[in-house]
Amino acid sequence: MLDPSDFIKESIEGIKKQIGDEKAIIALSGGVDSSVASVLVSEAIGDNLLAVFVDHGLLREGEAEYVKETFEPRLNFDCIDASEEFLKELEGVEDPEEKRKIIGEVFIRVFEREAEKEGAKFLVQGTIAPDWIESEGKIKSHHNVALPHGLVLELVEPIRELYKDEVRVVGSEMGLPDEIVNRQPFPGPGLAVRVVGKLTPEKIEICRKANAIVEEEVKKEGLDESLWQYFAVLTDTKVTGVKGDIRDFGYLVVLRMVESWDAMTANVPELPWGMIRTISARITAEVSEVTHVALSVSDKPPSTIEFA
Amino acid sequence: MLDPSDFIKESIEGIKKQIGDEKAIIALSGGVDSSVASVLVSEAIGDNLLAVFVDHGLLREGEAEYVKETFEPRLNFDCIDASEEFLKELEGVEDPEEKRKIIGEVFIRVFEREAEKEGAKFLVQGTIAPDWIESEGKIKSHHNVALPHGLVLELVEPIRELYKDEVRVVGSEMGLPDEIVNRQPFPGPGLAVRVVGKLTPEKIEICRKANAIVEEEVKKEGLDESLWQYFAVLTDTKVTGVKGDIRDFGYLVVLRMVESWDAMTANVPELPWGMIRTISARITAEVSEVTHVALSVSDKPPSTIEFA
Repeated sequence: MLDPSDFIKESIEGIKKQIGDEKAIIALSGGVDSSVASVLVSEAIGDNLLAVFVDHGLLREGEAEYVKETFEPRLNFDCIDASEEFLKELEGVEDPEEKRKIIGEVFIRVFEREAEKEGAKFLVQGTIAPDWIESEGKIKSHHNVALPHGLVLELVEPIRELYKDEVRVVGSEMGLPDEIVNRQPFPGPGLAVRVVGKLTPEKIEICRKANAIVEEEVKKEGLDESLWQYFAVLTDTKVTGVKGDIRDFGYLVVLRMVESWDAMTANVPELPWGMIRTISARITAEVSEVTHVALSVSDKPPSTIEFA
Repeated sequence: MLDPSDFIKESIEGIKKQIGDEKAIIALSGGVDSSVASVLVSEAIGDNLLAVFVDHGLLREGEAEYVKETFEPRLNFDCIDASEEFLKELEGVEDPEEKRKIIGEVFIRVFEREAEKEGAKFLVQGTIAPDWIESEGKIKSHHNVALPHGLVLELVEPIRELYKDEVRVVGSEMGLPDEIVNRQPFPGPGLAVRVVGKLTPEKIEICRKANAIVEEEVKKEGLDESLWQYFAVLTDTKVTGVKGDIRDFGYLVVLRMVESWDAMTANVPELPWGMIRTISARITAEVSEVTHVALSVSDKPPSTIEFA
């Protein structure tokens, strides 16, 4: 069993030794891994760590505000609104693999700009054990990373030996709020992979609103701790509906709620019908562009957790 | 309460008087209304009634065979395979209203050809009370219908005063099999409205296979009598999945199962999770083009029963 306070103490000393008086930078997503890595390194080197939160315009409702409120008082924190840059590059793109690729490229471009501005020599990453065990240890610690524009940074991976549950224990010990520590995973490309087909600001907003309803009702039901992930997907399927007395043509939204241990497999548990009914009724009532709601019933495999 | 044997006796006499020795034709879909109308008129005028079953290529698995087996021994029955004609006209059409319109037009064209060939003077229809009450009685009995190509037929509507449950009682009394009498409604345009987006023979076949699995499992669970309709929709949304070890990109299928009294409103009842899981697992295993299955959870209103 990991002793979190021992781990924190040793880790901080190791980071101090590695980074010295140089500057470091981390891309803080608000997920538990990058959050724990940020506070650990910040304990070690203080404001010499810059934690950059990149808003790509594909975040959940209230997400940027929440991450800002949580970390601004505690870290040397910067929020970059790059949503226009991302959405411009994603215009007209339908293929999910292409979306992921573009988002990754724009993300590094934005991040490298910040790292150069800051004069950072070290790049902190929230890599955890399953990330490199799965790729057969190919990623080595303490090696250098060359960013596309030419910047070379030395990698710092303070939690690379930990598993997810250990990361959560360390996060709690360091005083991170439960909300961050027990957060459901949110994909890097954000809502881009939950809006099927071409992205438009309108479609992203529909997905965001539907997703907020799912999160609210799941929490009200007390299922936010037992579910691994719970979210809404805006499909590109249009369905006839009736609003008032008129025929209406709107989107199909799919609800996805899965249990999982490690994301390698996942299953849809038996869910309370009352909650599903409430979510469905609220989405069609509160999000006028949606006419039909369905609950995903596929496990992983043969499906994946995210739609894309 | 309707006395079915009195009704049948009076009805047959009325039909004999109206049609005399002339020839009549009916479009027999295999649904309960047109089936009951067909056997009633056939009892009255024998082989002077031609029952035409038009196969538009958008039928459920085994449907044409089943209707043929049931009615060929009993009626002057003709099955017209017009699937090529329908699919050609539907090529590239995405809009569901447009699909319905085209199918209606091609249907009448095929049917009129048969009526002319037959020398029919009368057109039998399975109109029931809600059909004309809803349109404020605008459709009158015993009036003439002019078909687009110029053929004028006198209308015979033997069950126009009956409600659905009375039609079923009359059908049973006349010895129609339970399978026909208690059949779930199937839309005239068939699978065309259950394949979202452009129709291709491949997509129709995927929908047909998924639908057959739904029907099989619902019957196995004994829910075929309590559910008003139960079917599969092939959406035009593509979802990433994993088959074996490879990433796969396939269709999202939506299961729709509703209770209803009169189709004006409908609701999704609490369904057995075991059955839903079996259907989902079977569809992704047996229909290789499908990677994800979701269960519709929307009532009518705000959604409709069919997707289009």
